[in-house]
Amino acid sequence: MRLRNIPGAEQALLEYPTFVEQPTDYKTRWHERFQNDHPIHVEIGCGKGRFITTLAAKYPEINFIAIELKAEVVLRAAQRTEHRPIPNLAFVQYNAAQLTDLFGPGEISRIYLNFSDPWPKKRHHKRRLTYSSFLQLYKQVLKPDGELHVKTDNEHLFEFTLNQLSEALFQMRHITFDLHHSPFAEENVLTEYEERFSARGQRIYRVEAICRPN
Amino acid sequence: MRLRNIPGAEQALLEYPTFVEQPTDYKTRWHERFQNDHPIHVEIGCGKGRFITTLAAKYPEINFIAIELKAEVVLRAAQRTEHRPIPNLAFVQYNAAQLTDLFGPGEISRIYLNFSDPWPKKRHHKRRLTYSSFLQLYKQVLKPDGELHVKTDNEHLFEFTLNQLSEALFQMRHITFDLHHSPFAEENVLTEYEERFSARGQRIYRVEAICRPN
Repeated sequence: MRLRNIPGAEQALLEYPTFVEQPTDYKTRWHERFQNDHPIHVEIGCGKGRFITTLAAKYPEINFIAIELKAEVVLRAAQRTEHRPIPNLAFVQYNAAQLTDLFGPGEISRIYLNFSDPWPKKRHHKRRLTYSSFLQLYKQVLKPDGELHVKTDNEHLFEFTLNQLSEALFQMRHITFDLHHSPFAEENVLTEYEERFSARGQRIYRVEAICRPN
Repeated sequence: MRLRNIPGAEQALLEYPTFVEQPTDYKTRWHERFQNDHPIHVEIGCGKGRFITTLAAKYPEINFIAIELKAEVVLRAAQRTEHRPIPNLAFVQYNAAQLTDLFGPGEISRIYLNFSDPWPKKRHHKRRLTYSSFLQLYKQVLKPDGELHVKTDNEHLFEFTLNQLSEALFQMRHITFDLHHSPFAEENVLTEYEERFSARGQRIYRVEAICRPN
């Protein structure tokens, strides 16, 4: 997602109670932050934050953490929560490639990847969030039988993702090539991007992958 | 594939040395039929037989067995071998649902399913050759790490197949949504059906699945 640079975004973020200033402090201790032992679901790349804030409101018994690289993007997402405090939601500005700085082994029950950058050039494939090195990171922080849920409108990224997941011994289920015309459409929570693209007739691909021991 | 009924097809088949009249006699003993210990690859639903006869000519160190339900289809396929004996090829008229009548545990190294009937109606899904009950049959006759190679032009069948394979704990690899524009195109052996459909710009989906213990 492209957003214009927002001067002072990092400073502005400090005013939002959902923003976590020093997220590495909570590694293995996120339950102290949330003050409960509920399962933790993480979205990597939360964009403008509609997906994660909708989920957080819908499932109060789950703790949600949204991770974004860019301060201005996190700010846009955090602004959604300005007028309604959501105790089970936290925003983190961090690089997903350093995910193990944020979470201990098995600390997470589920990871969401929604419309991640497809990085179409072959030399950039290792930047894809479903590249094998990322999948190994996810395995380090997911519980046994923890889940990775991937949505994309990019067929090439989806094909790539299925292969990477198979190779990394994730067990896949509910693979769909057309989410909005599948049995999973009803409970699907739309992202901003997804709404715009599916309105144009673009198909959405989705897979759930279960973390199995290597 | 629809073929007109050929009167006397079953009788005519007996004249072809590649046709196996009593295939259940060879269960656990196919190596006696082929007179060697080479690996056995099976195609279920061989149509007019181009795929399997091409493979058999190309890979003399593999034994190929083609299974078809209808005598007239087997006859058409066997007729391909009339003027050139292919010692590493055998045709069998049998119902794939009774596959374990034909092969003992671990007797097969690879199974090919090419453009199997997509059975689009939901109440017919259990007839699909990648339905879970068939996958369990394949597991009974495949070696550990034996392979199932599936090609189809039917997207719904492919999506269904990926889900069934995942659930049955086959490990997938080389998943491609467009075989003829993939790295696997070069070594791909075309079926008659595939040539006709891809000439019209129809995409071909393909997956290799490795048999893992339950």
